[in-house]
Amino acid sequence: MSGVVVQRIERADPRVIDELATFGVATVHEAQGRKGLLASRLRPIYSGARIAGSAVTISAPPGDNWMVHVAIEQLAAGDILVLAPTSPCEDGYFGDLLATSAMARGCRGLVIDAGVRDVRDLTRMGFPVWSKAISAQGTVKATLGSVNVPVVCGEALVRAGNVIVADDDGVCVVAREEAASVAAASRAREAAEEDKRKRLAAGELGLDIYKMRERLKEMGLKYV
Amino acid sequence: MSGVVVQRIERADPRVIDELATFGVATVHEAQGRKGLLASRLRPIYSGARIAGSAVTISAPPGDNWMVHVAIEQLAAGDILVLAPTSPCEDGYFGDLLATSAMARGCRGLVIDAGVRDVRDLTRMGFPVWSKAISAQGTVKATLGSVNVPVVCGEALVRAGNVIVADDDGVCVVAREEAASVAAASRAREAAEEDKRKRLAAGELGLDIYKMRERLKEMGLKYV
Amino acid sequence: MSGVVVQRIERADPRVIDELATFGVATVHEAQGRKGLLASRLRPIYSGARIAGSAVTISAPPGDNWMVHVAIEQLAAGDILVLAPTSPCEDGYFGDLLATSAMARGCRGLVIDAGVRDVRDLTRMGFPVWSKAISAQGTVKATLGSVNVPVVCGEALVRAGNVIVADDDGVCVVAREEAASVAAASRAREAAEEDKRKRLAAGELGLDIYKMRERLKEMGLKYV
Amino acid sequence: MSGVVVQRIERADPRVIDELATFGVATVHEAQGRKGLLASRLRPIYSGARIAGSAVTISAPPGDNWMVHVAIEQLAAGDILVLAPTSPCEDGYFGDLLATSAMARGCRGLVIDAGVRDVRDLTRMGFPVWSKAISAQGTVKATLGSVNVPVVCGEALVRAGNVIVADDDGVCVVAREEAASVAAASRAREAAEEDKRKRLAAGELGLDIYKMRERLKEMGLKYV
Amino acid sequence: MSGVVVQRIERADPRVIDELATFGVATVHEAQGRKGLLASRLRPIYSGARIAGSAVTISAPPGDNWMVHVAIEQLAAGDILVLAPTSPCEDGYFGDLLATSAMARGCRGLVIDAGVRDVRDLTRMGFPVWSKAISAQGTVKATLGSVNVPVVCGEALVRAGNVIVADDDGVCVVAREEAASVAAASRAREAAEEDKRKRLAAGELGLDIYKMRERLKEMGLKYV
Amino acid sequence: MSGVVVQRIERADPRVIDELATFGVATVHEAQGRKGLLASRLRPIYSGARIAGSAVTISAPPGDNWMVHVAIEQLAAGDILVLAPTSPCEDGYFGDLLATSAMARGCRGLVIDAGVRDVRDLTRMGFPVWSKAISAQGTVKATLGSVNVPVVCGEALVRAGNVIVADDDGVCVVAREEAASVAAASRAREAAEEDKRKRLAAGELGLDIYKMRERLKEMGLKYV
Repeated sequence: MSGVVVQRIERADPRVIDELATFGVATVHEAQGRKGLLASRLRPIYSGARIAGSAVTISAPPGDNWMVHVAIEQLAAGDILVLAPTSPCEDGYFGDLLATSAMARGCRGLVIDAGVRDVRDLTRMGFPVWSKAISAQGTVKATLGSVNVPVVCGEALVRAGNVIVADDDGVCVVAREEAASVAAASRAREAAEEDKRKRLAAGELGLDIYKMRERLKEMGLKYV
Repeated sequence: MSGVVVQRIERADPRVIDELATFGVATVHEAQGRKGLLASRLRPIYSGARIAGSAVTISAPPGDNWMVHVAIEQLAAGDILVLAPTSPCEDGYFGDLLATSAMARGCRGLVIDAGVRDVRDLTRMGFPVWSKAISAQGTVKATLGSVNVPVVCGEALVRAGNVIVADDDGVCVVAREEAASVAAASRAREAAEEDKRKRLAAGELGLDIYKMRERLKEMGLKYV
Repeated sequence: MSGVVVQRIERADPRVIDELATFGVATVHEAQGRKGLLASRLRPIYSGARIAGSAVTISAPPGDNWMVHVAIEQLAAGDILVLAPTSPCEDGYFGDLLATSAMARGCRGLVIDAGVRDVRDLTRMGFPVWSKAISAQGTVKATLGSVNVPVVCGEALVRAGNVIVADDDGVCVVAREEAASVAAASRAREAAEEDKRKRLAAGELGLDIYKMRERLKEMGLKYV
Repeated sequence: MSGVVVQRIERADPRVIDELATFGVATVHEAQGRKGLLASRLRPIYSGARIAGSAVTISAPPGDNWMVHVAIEQLAAGDILVLAPTSPCEDGYFGDLLATSAMARGCRGLVIDAGVRDVRDLTRMGFPVWSKAISAQGTVKATLGSVNVPVVCGEALVRAGNVIVADDDGVCVVAREEAASVAAASRAREAAEEDKRKRLAAGELGLDIYKMRERLKEMGLKYV
Repeated sequence: MSGVVVQRIERADPRVIDELATFGVATVHEAQGRKGLLASRLRPIYSGARIAGSAVTISAPPGDNWMVHVAIEQLAAGDILVLAPTSPCEDGYFGDLLATSAMARGCRGLVIDAGVRDVRDLTRMGFPVWSKAISAQGTVKATLGSVNVPVVCGEALVRAGNVIVADDDGVCVVAREEAASVAAASRAREAAEEDKRKRLAAGELGLDIYKMRERLKEMGLKYV
Repeated sequence: MSGVVVQRIERADPRVIDELATFGVATVHEAQGRKGLLASRLRPIYSGARIAGSAVTISAPPGDNWMVHVAIEQLAAGDILVLAPTSPCEDGYFGDLLATSAMARGCRGLVIDAGVRDVRDLTRMGFPVWSKAISAQGTVKATLGSVNVPVVCGEALVRAGNVIVADDDGVCVVAREEAASVAAASRAREAAEEDKRKRLAAGELGLDIYKMRERLKEMGLKYV
């Protein structure tokens, strides 16, 4: 299983990817039927970033970041690194040097179910990271892992070339083949929400807008 | 137990509530005898907010936010929503649409022992939330809960109409009947602290100001 | 074990301490051979601070901050308070009054494997804290602990007079006797990194800079 | 709030209490409408115990078990001690000596949202405990708490005289006034389950027994 | 995604499955190249069970066990239920009635990344469960999930028909197509271990048996 | 720091060590002034074991058990292995083969702030382990660590040759130089407890035996 680098991956249409970024995680997650959300333990190192890109996946041994170097060579502009350790680990696999290298290749960010370090520098560089931990604990380069194999990251299955969307709400993965339809569904959802937002802001109640009163009554809700 | 909406709740004097906000959680918690603090897992989604308001409570099934819509109708200006799931859950029960609706009714914020989403929007809107998690995971509207019944939220008992005080230190609940006396005690406490702050800033030691040296000696503290 | 205050501690050269602050935790930790890192649960209450100082250690009972007052008397300018409870606790041992007192004596910050409160005030005062929790829960002053004895804080051994380095990546402890050599090694490391940073920014790959390709091949990495 | 011992508490009918023990936690919890369950972090120190009794509650400071001695005097035969620390703590508040004393007064067990020790002895003595932790860390006797005041233990509100039911599934609290009706509902529930158990054992499906097929179809379940 | 029941799944050869059970999780996991292990939070409700079977998977909403009834109809003799909630949940989805029904269809056990209840009964019935929690908290039957779709359970991808192996060490998933080769590799591994076990028991050192001394020296290990 | 094996360690008197085992962790911990307790996350893999022995310490990289082989050569009869990973890890560093080897050298058990596997075999062999996790996840042999250097294990400092006491209450470390005096203090403590146990069993109250009533009154305890 380990020791494999898949060099050729298919990616979604860049315009679709960029559009997905504008919707953000909550909308995209709903639009694709509430699937593909990564665990909420993956938090951004700074707030305000909102990105989308194609996943270049890394399966790495605990405490060993060798494969990150291997993965960086596989990056195309617009990609996002997604690292899953093969067993739970919070070491700092990634810091400012690796970010410099990844940015030089057009990488948009990192999603890592482990730790990251140099977060002050990464913040200054504008390289966003969603991680399980922040830790200065370094890693070794002694054992092989794999690049661009399917990984379970944050309890979600991520395949190379999947679209990753990430913002302050967390991280979501979208299947490459579904990216366009999810973007369309997100667009529709946002349009529908816009109308509701106005009505709610004007003081109308969700109970009325969504016509919930009757069903609540049927289910037995009692006002006392 | 479930399926009840208590429509009429009593609230504390608005001026007392507003004064409690100025003291903040740490002072109020001390002033009322170190009780009523919610668990520290409830963290603000952005820093700097400091609010107080009357609790409108929600007891909700895991992963089901139907009752939030019901609760919003019960809000009066100055209220704070307090949601406790009936079993541990970190789904995102609340987002920007619900916040829009709650703000339209004068709601000052949300305290939720579960998850919240759209935090970027909520931050921009200035709608403060204290939550256990940030999660884009949506919820359903399938099962009844209750509104304005007593709930245990963050391991503290909260009754509808209790005063909630929340800031960067966490969340505290004050009994409605005790709100005025707690405000008075907080005021007194702050005045006393002001004097101590000056003396400490001038270099006097707590050991001397609080006359601790003798008791420490009695208890056997040894300087070596 | 309890009830002892060690009054005289040796400290490292102030210039060395100040230099260590400039390198930050990740570099210092690597430079001293990947040891001395405190557990990643110790997080800064605000981002951007980067400090170094001599440890004044506090061993305190759970929920009892009496010894903090005792420790403040032992502070010299440039020191950092390091508090370890004798059993796990997240109460708020420290707030703005204690910070006022500590700052009056030149204290640079607090590292605490427990809780802190008044974080809004501490942030405004520019008094940095790395803590396990933020909690308004106050403490009592009823039981003795010790000051300037060795403590295990965040799963690392800290002796009084050790150099503490802390920033957004966490907290690291450096033995007093090794401070100068660690500073030298950090300096060398940074110089070496500077060159690599430029090459990586220019698009060179770590695989080439660090000559990894051959060893990866030997270990059996397969490109498919 | 602290420093109060309520000496007279009302208890439920002993026969009702004993009957509740026979049903166990899962049945009682369902029978009373899915309320009153304590957090699942409270685990038995040994398996197989199933008890019910009247709660004698203890609110104790972190790391201070003084009030346990005070509470033991308040025990009547058939009672269960319920201890909630005023802030999170996992120290061992209770060991074999206290168990000896409690058993001498007819106490049936302990529910504690903190730690316990001497578990080997307690197991041998047949004194069951549901706790958050097992820890040899001792406690002090320096600060007052209260006995027989309402406490939040394991995120549930427990009042003195409430009926506690505990077994391998966890711990549940039943209001004293509702004990008889909950026992009746439990009895009815068990009878109903007995019939279903036989049918299920014979191979009938829940889908048919509970007539779920139609509603599943209505909701859109697709068999492929 | 939700609301689908896949009725026909392929299973591995029953003899291979049964042989895998004899090796246990640690051996099977190693034999298939250290992949497929579920998270260690999944613990057995009683010790000593060691099973293998074909996965019938359930994707269920938090706090809703409706799909378990649907899944039981899909069980064949020798199967194991594998339930993953769509967001983190520790409610008790499964108890003695469902176990009775599952056993009537030849089910060998349950793996659930959530809670289970009636563990005393399940233990007595000899129905083994590996779960994240034990909780008497019941669930509702209000929202659809899916059966026999791929799920991520305990951070591992499980497909219907995969072989599940579970014992006191945890749970491992084996791809159906690889079951026979993994069994063969496990057999070989066990044979090899048997020889080593004898030599180690006789006092020989792993350092010598595995010829590690030279490489340790090369890497710089110093004996002092 | 890494890559060192200290070959000669001093051990405490075997009779003292064996006597410490008879007292158990709670008594020893109290007798030495409530210090030296390891974190409560270290739990026994089976209940009922009670051991004491001299620590042979292992500092190991995450997910790498190479040093265990090195440490086994350093074992003398009556020793206990104590493994601390250099960053948090729950992989299974140790299984039945290593236990066979360790037992052949007279090792009494393992304390590990990480994972262990083959727990069914270890239980059958009567080789007790206190660990943070049970995990079948294997480890590699690629990076050096150290043997018999001081380690922080379970948040306590352990030096090679320290006496480890472990039972169902957890694990405690005793300094070699203090072993005899701690044994004496434990003996005295047990004798004193024996008398109290009888009086408590006869129904006398701790309030009277320890003469607490007066001080409780002074502190303001109110009986209502």
